Amino acid sequence: MNIAKSTIKELEKLCKDIREEILRVVSKNGGHLSSTLGATEIIVAMHKVFDSKKDPFIFDVSHQSYAHKLITERWSKFDTLRQFGGISGYTKPSESEHDYFVAGHSSTSISLGVGAAKAIALKGEQDSRVPVVMIGDGSMTAGMVYEALNELGERKYPMVIILNDNEMSIAKPIGAISRMLSSAMASPFYQTFKRHTENFVDNFGEGAHYIAKRMEESLKLITPGIMFEEMGIDYIGPVNGHNLASLVEILQKAKDLKKPVIVHVQTLKGKGYQIAEGKEEKWHGVGPFDIGSGNASNKKSSSKSATQIYSEALLHLAKKNEKIVGATAAMPSGTGLSELIELYPTRFWDVAIAEQHAVTSMAALAKEGFKPFCTIYSTFLQRGYDQIIHDTCLMDLPVVFALDRAGIVGEDGETHQGVFDISFLRAIPNMTLLAPRDERSFHQAMAFAAEYKHPCSLRYPRGSFIETDLPESLPFEIAKSQMLRTNNSDILFIGYGNGVGRAYQSAEFLDVEVNILDLRFVKPLDENMLRELSKKHDKWFVFSDSAKMGGVASAILEFLAKEKILHIKLESFEYDDNFITHGNTKQVEESLGLLPKQLAKRVETLI
Amino acid sequence: MNIAKSTIKELEKLCKDIREEILRVVSKNGGHLSSTLGATEIIVAMHKVFDSKKDPFIFDVSHQSYAHKLITERWSKFDTLRQFGGISGYTKPSESEHDYFVAGHSSTSISLGVGAAKAIALKGEQDSRVPVVMIGDGSMTAGMVYEALNELGERKYPMVIILNDNEMSIAKPIGAISRMLSSAMASPFYQTFKRHTENFVDNFGEGAHYIAKRMEESLKLITPGIMFEEMGIDYIGPVNGHNLASLVEILQKAKDLKKPVIVHVQTLKGKGYQIAEGKEEKWHGVGPFDIGSGNASNKKSSSKSATQIYSEALLHLAKKNEKIVGATAAMPSGTGLSELIELYPTRFWDVAIAEQHAVTSMAALAKEGFKPFCTIYSTFLQRGYDQIIHDTCLMDLPVVFALDRAGIVGEDGETHQGVFDISFLRAIPNMTLLAPRDERSFHQAMAFAAEYKHPCSLRYPRGSFIETDLPESLPFEIAKSQMLRTNNSDILFIGYGNGVGRAYQSAEFLDVEVNILDLRFVKPLDENMLRELSKKHDKWFVFSDSAKMGGVASAILEFLAKEKILHIKLESFEYDDNFITHGNTKQVEESLGLLPKQLAKRVETLI
Repeated sequence: MNIAKSTIKELEKLCKDIREEILRVVSKNGGHLSSTLGATEIIVAMHKVFDSKKDPFIFDVSHQSYAHKLITERWSKFDTLRQFGGISGYTKPSESEHDYFVAGHSSTSISLGVGAAKAIALKGEQDSRVPVVMIGDGSMTAGMVYEALNELGERKYPMVIILNDNEMSIAKPIGAISRMLSSAMASPFYQTFKRHTENFVDNFGEGAHYIAKRMEESLKLITPGIMFEEMGIDYIGPVNGHNLASLVEILQKAKDLKKPVIVHVQTLKGKGYQIAEGKEEKWHGVGPFDIGSGNASNKKSSSKSATQIYSEALLHLAKKNEKIVGATAAMPSGTGLSELIELYPTRFWDVAIAEQHAVTSMAALAKEGFKPFCTIYSTFLQRGYDQIIHDTCLMDLPVVFALDRAGIVGEDGETHQGVFDISFLRAIPNMTLLAPRDERSFHQAMAFAAEYKHPCSLRYPRGSFIETDLPESLPFEIAKSQMLRTNNSDILFIGYGNGVGRAYQSAEFLDVEVNILDLRFVKPLDENMLRELSKKHDKWFVFSDSAKMGGVASAILEFLAKEKILHIKLESFEYDDNFITHGNTKQVEESLGLLPKQLAKRVETLI
Repeated sequence: MNIAKSTIKELEKLCKDIREEILRVVSKNGGHLSSTLGATEIIVAMHKVFDSKKDPFIFDVSHQSYAHKLITERWSKFDTLRQFGGISGYTKPSESEHDYFVAGHSSTSISLGVGAAKAIALKGEQDSRVPVVMIGDGSMTAGMVYEALNELGERKYPMVIILNDNEMSIAKPIGAISRMLSSAMASPFYQTFKRHTENFVDNFGEGAHYIAKRMEESLKLITPGIMFEEMGIDYIGPVNGHNLASLVEILQKAKDLKKPVIVHVQTLKGKGYQIAEGKEEKWHGVGPFDIGSGNASNKKSSSKSATQIYSEALLHLAKKNEKIVGATAAMPSGTGLSELIELYPTRFWDVAIAEQHAVTSMAALAKEGFKPFCTIYSTFLQRGYDQIIHDTCLMDLPVVFALDRAGIVGEDGETHQGVFDISFLRAIPNMTLLAPRDERSFHQAMAFAAEYKHPCSLRYPRGSFIETDLPESLPFEIAKSQMLRTNNSDILFIGYGNGVGRAYQSAEFLDVEVNILDLRFVKPLDENMLRELSKKHDKWFVFSDSAKMGGVASAILEFLAKEKILHIKLESFEYDDNFITHGNTKQVEESLGLLPKQLAKRVETLI
């Protein structure tokens, strides 16, 4: 279908078909639903006005880009959405020339647009190419958006930014932008202006009222965009995001302006699927479900998720100790903090997509004697790296970094894998790194963290821990590992976090006996234990769901080198130096040779 | 002197004394001059209105806090400013209870204020404590400021933010905020408003002109702060920052508001030292100088700085290849990019303090076929970490990260040391890490980087490379090291970057012969060379100005473990796991045992 040549009526029918296909496939495979349904007309209008083979199409986060995928030659493959080997849930240039950039983390789009616009200007292509950016209101809280708008407003590159305002980010709307967008008329500026006007109009009698009224109206037109206008960026809107004809008209106008312009589009999340329409967090990302009832198709897993354990453990601690506080950056439900925020609204905060601010503000709370649990997915903590070094560890402040989604995260894929945290955190002085391996040890790790006087970080997987029937976990003590299985074998399995379960299950596939150590702390290491073990066993295998470079095995090698212990043969079963694709976690692990059965085979060839 | 009880007249005299002392000491020791001179009255007024033993005093970047140090019991020690063992050039709680937080990186202050305000609210201390933040206009471009303002405006914690507007950041003012501050009346919003007003006033004849005029005036009062008001934060100003009486009055009012409020204060950089008054970058940070003439006291070092070599090499390449572009984040002179920005204003940009945006926008330029040199100090690149992973390496885009100030940076101290970059970059797939050791190799490394088709990072020290008379550097080839000295000794020195010179100079102090390898690439390693060398030499020493954890030696250990090469005794002379203090680089290195003479001794005890 040639969208550029189609009529609005034909395109409205296309929108209907797109929604049906998205609903069909997401209800089967799971995925992001409500924002992508809401953005359907916007995306079709983008393709009507712009050319994705030529104009950079930049989708912020890109979880709302399913419609774009469908109309750029991926309809027939859409069935494989988010499945291993199938198409990604995010834009991906290696998948299609119509996908300009990878995006899975939020708020990168305007920077990408600025870079593209600079390139277009340098190539002299400004007459034939314009970057078009779509960004949700939730993404507008992250600092890098302002950094980019700041340069854009200064240098005035032609660019169309579609602000998809569905009145919420993933969770509740937070902060200035969303307030401004949703109720421009109630804004402090507008109120101040009104007060000024009224005061002085009162002194001029009836005639002036008419003038003031006109003034107010003309102001109304520009108020919602005043912040952008202040930054030097034109503002158009608000526009109904489900009226295809007016969207096309306005995008065409915006494109013709040859200036940076923000088109403020209002949409309804979940549009077209009544059960999800306007619903908050629940329908943002979903597992497979029954379209008729909206009920989840899969029974809940029998084992508790690590997030759930974290949530319960933190609640337990928070009840006993009022110094415990915490923050999430726009992931209250994903991190298990929702209930705490509801119960203790002055102690637990959702600070919006703002990881830098989350970390530094928690550091200040620690300085004031509180015990902050800064709860952020491993992959998103990358956004707060400098703040961990400069604002937390340099002051040796007792902030706990709780890293959810550490390891392979499954269907979200390469942008979301939680693989680098050990490598980037381990190098920071004053930082302590620990990890639980199951429910009991998680509670114990949390109890340790709650009392610990220095920065520390604990990591845990998406979903459940790998199950074992190893001896019960003992309370955490600094730099103390726990020996779980001892025998005369020369083989030592060292597990860290979820790697303990992986080590245990791998051992089940082996004919030979192995010793199993739960390392517990990768920093500081249990040096005494490792020294003792080096005297008894010389074939070491390291199991951890983390990058090999600078990871757990690397830490152990540094220790052995320092001690001049030379006889240990050490093999790391951490992740090799590649980005890891999306798909069912088991399938992804299988492709990497990391299933226990496969690991057992690898051990056999090495002993 | 009890500032709270002093008269304005007495305090004006104090300001004069403070300026003299700052000038005296900075002209002797070097340091930050113009912003600290400009902020003198503000700081005295802060101490008059607030209590630094109680109220959190938060200085953004804190290079402007010298006056605060002088009046909080550090006058007698001020002579030791920035010297080894002396007082720090930045706020430092371990130095004084009056210093609330460490700050050396910009734009953290409002997040710290929000955290402190949350703590104050929880403790029920809102009647007795208010956070007071001082932030320069240059710091307002970084994203985390907006993240913090966003939450502050939403939750309305009492806080006084003094926006010290000296009409420039370190370099030229960039972006919306500075434009807004310096010429509120020329703002697009104001112009639009004026146009609207004029149009409709024209229809109402003479009488309406008077009304419109009044309207315009009342608007004038609120326009400069409109962006803050939009965010839910009160705005007061602009205020003359050198009028102590009015500063005190206004800060008292702001404090009494019990709301978040921004006080916009206009100051003159360098105030009180005529030679520096209003001067741009030149007087921001200075070495020792003669007060009378303003001339630098120290003769320029005879050897060229690494920054200068970088600048020349990049200029050379940029002349030949128009695809070469580049960015700095507010450090045009510090990174050597000034000349390029001047010569090629459409290819080299200062994007302001905005490392996240710098990285991601350069990634987009790479996608468009350009070759971006993203030039950022090692320590500040920590701010763009996620953008390197998610926006650059995931797409395998050929951005060059040029990391100035890698290693110990001297007087700026612990907030600025460039020690973590290898650890945090090495773990990222698709990333290549290389380092030059001298001028010639720097040109060769740049030539390599300019042609390389993947992301890469090269690091170089502050100041000059350590000198050697080792064989000339050969052109860089991927994963190829260069053997510099070969003999029958069992000792192998492996140097990386400036570590090559350190290895060479250490060897000079030894009676035994050593082999010397210039590693050149820490990722990917020259595996063939290392394998061959392991057959000939078994005592390896690693020299690199980087953190030990996850650093160069760690990379080599991972390789040896993978190859099951067990007989190598390896010692790393990288930095131990501590934050490194400020002072003359030689003195700091001596305290760490890293001077060549000391390293030679350490080698002797190990062989």
